Amino acid sequence: MKPAFLAVDWGTSSFRAWMMDHAGMVLDERVDKTGMATLTPELYPLVLAEHLAAFGVGADVPVLICGMAGAAQGWRQAPYLDTPARLSDIAGQAIRVSGVANDVRILPGIAQRLAGAWDVMRGEETILLGASLRSGDAMIVCLPGTHSKWAVIREGRLESFDTAMTGEVFGLLSQHSTLSHALAGESPALGSEFERAVAEALARPERILRKLFSIRAKSLLADGWNAPDGLDRLSGLLIGLEIAGTRKPEDGPVMLIASGIHRETYARAFAVAGISYEALDAEPLVRGGLYHAACAIWPEVFDRDTG
Amino acid sequence: MKPAFLAVDWGTSSFRAWMMDHAGMVLDERVDKTGMATLTPELYPLVLAEHLAAFGVGADVPVLICGMAGAAQGWRQAPYLDTPARLSDIAGQAIRVSGVANDVRILPGIAQRLAGAWDVMRGEETILLGASLRSGDAMIVCLPGTHSKWAVIREGRLESFDTAMTGEVFGLLSQHSTLSHALAGESPALGSEFERAVAEALARPERILRKLFSIRAKSLLADGWNAPDGLDRLSGLLIGLEIAGTRKPEDGPVMLIASGIHRETYARAFAVAGISYEALDAEPLVRGGLYHAACAIWPEVFDRDTG
Repeated sequence: MKPAFLAVDWGTSSFRAWMMDHAGMVLDERVDKTGMATLTPELYPLVLAEHLAAFGVGADVPVLICGMAGAAQGWRQAPYLDTPARLSDIAGQAIRVSGVANDVRILPGIAQRLAGAWDVMRGEETILLGASLRSGDAMIVCLPGTHSKWAVIREGRLESFDTAMTGEVFGLLSQHSTLSHALAGESPALGSEFERAVAEALARPERILRKLFSIRAKSLLADGWNAPDGLDRLSGLLIGLEIAGTRKPEDGPVMLIASGIHRETYARAFAVAGISYEALDAEPLVRGGLYHAACAIWPEVFDRDTG
Repeated sequence: MKPAFLAVDWGTSSFRAWMMDHAGMVLDERVDKTGMATLTPELYPLVLAEHLAAFGVGADVPVLICGMAGAAQGWRQAPYLDTPARLSDIAGQAIRVSGVANDVRILPGIAQRLAGAWDVMRGEETILLGASLRSGDAMIVCLPGTHSKWAVIREGRLESFDTAMTGEVFGLLSQHSTLSHALAGESPALGSEFERAVAEALARPERILRKLFSIRAKSLLADGWNAPDGLDRLSGLLIGLEIAGTRKPEDGPVMLIASGIHRETYARAFAVAGISYEALDAEPLVRGGLYHAACAIWPEVFDRDTG
């Protein structure tokens, strides 16, 4: 099959690229750990050229990128769309990168310019476009992570969204705080301490700063305490707090876009909170969003291949 | 004046010692930055001996210590008293350190062994003893810091307490998180952004994880944003959250034991929350607590000096 374009999700610490055909099928895939955290603007075209050579394609294959490569500290800044935003409009706002052999475009992020609810996303808008193509109805989407996103989508429009620093706060507290001595394990074991902590945070979210310290105090005082319980408790408290702050009881079911440990922890927490959900992987959705945008940006590529 | 005893507040990263006479007057003072964070059990007696030599006193002067020197990771563990605890009982539970020339005692901390409200303090119990000697009535005490303590005291008894990780979370987020790029300054400037943030956290404490991210988003999006506003906002959100989680509206006025920037920030936050307070310095209170305990531990020393 002839490659139609290269779809790239280029984030803070990861590069994922899929060579796709005119119908959106994946022909080849490459992944590495380069990203905004380690790259300067001058390095982006060199990294991309290496991957294009490894894919074995020439300057005639266009490249569509989403993610932090479009941030001010990335390769080239792709100005934000503002909420409420029709997700399919990201294609029309893609910027073209000059000075490279291939036709390279970067999709914009989305900004929410509301006093008291300022927010930004880059990369998630493309996942959300992919999700909205799957279902035209209203939905609440949860994308857990370093900065978890909660999005309200109606008929292909991103109405509003919230970002919770759950993953970053979890990382700081588990690795660099007084609590680190009371914890053990790479990721939560999801025992009963996790569920208890989710319930506590849902019931009394305002007490989070003292609930966090209770992890250390309990490790010093409680008979039978073990450090994996501490990691469960920290994770449960923070995810419970995130849910308490982002989802109203009258909201409908949630589309949980996550894999691995994130899917496991949030699914368990949703069960404690009585939230029904559908779980999906992000990767096919971001590819779906990139493909949809590419068809809008380069109609001639896809017309020619199909015609 | 003849020295009666050496009063020492020995914490995680500080050593403060006062040579006191039989009436509790300070004859001399020494301060350094040694503490549990940098000492092993073998080093404590050496550091103390240096200070005793510098004070110019011999092996006949007893030494009373409060603080983290009595923790399991300190010099010698002084087992906790449990809540509810009569604060003056700390004297009777002091442990004696063997293998040193002087009569050295370490005061215990206090533990709260309650499921869901596990808590510990070391050092603050001595400040609280000093505070309770000043006023026999019921009081709510707030001791801001790395780990802020909120204590309920009635007629000299510590009924219950809460520890909020406010200062530690502030340090982690301001220095080691994504937010650090949106902040500037050593300490909050206490502008209008601080008060707005306190009010926001009091009104919607459950939204803290997304409010925190709004600092970064606002720094990217808002015209006229400046980084000192970011530090004000971070400080205001966390102190507002602490107050939302530790103090009930029906509680009476607060005794705020703090100095410097902590006194300024908490006083401003209490004003936003409509909380009346009296502000006191911790140092004379911890000395008062140490003196009261020393009189109970070594009555012969104080009898002899007065007789």
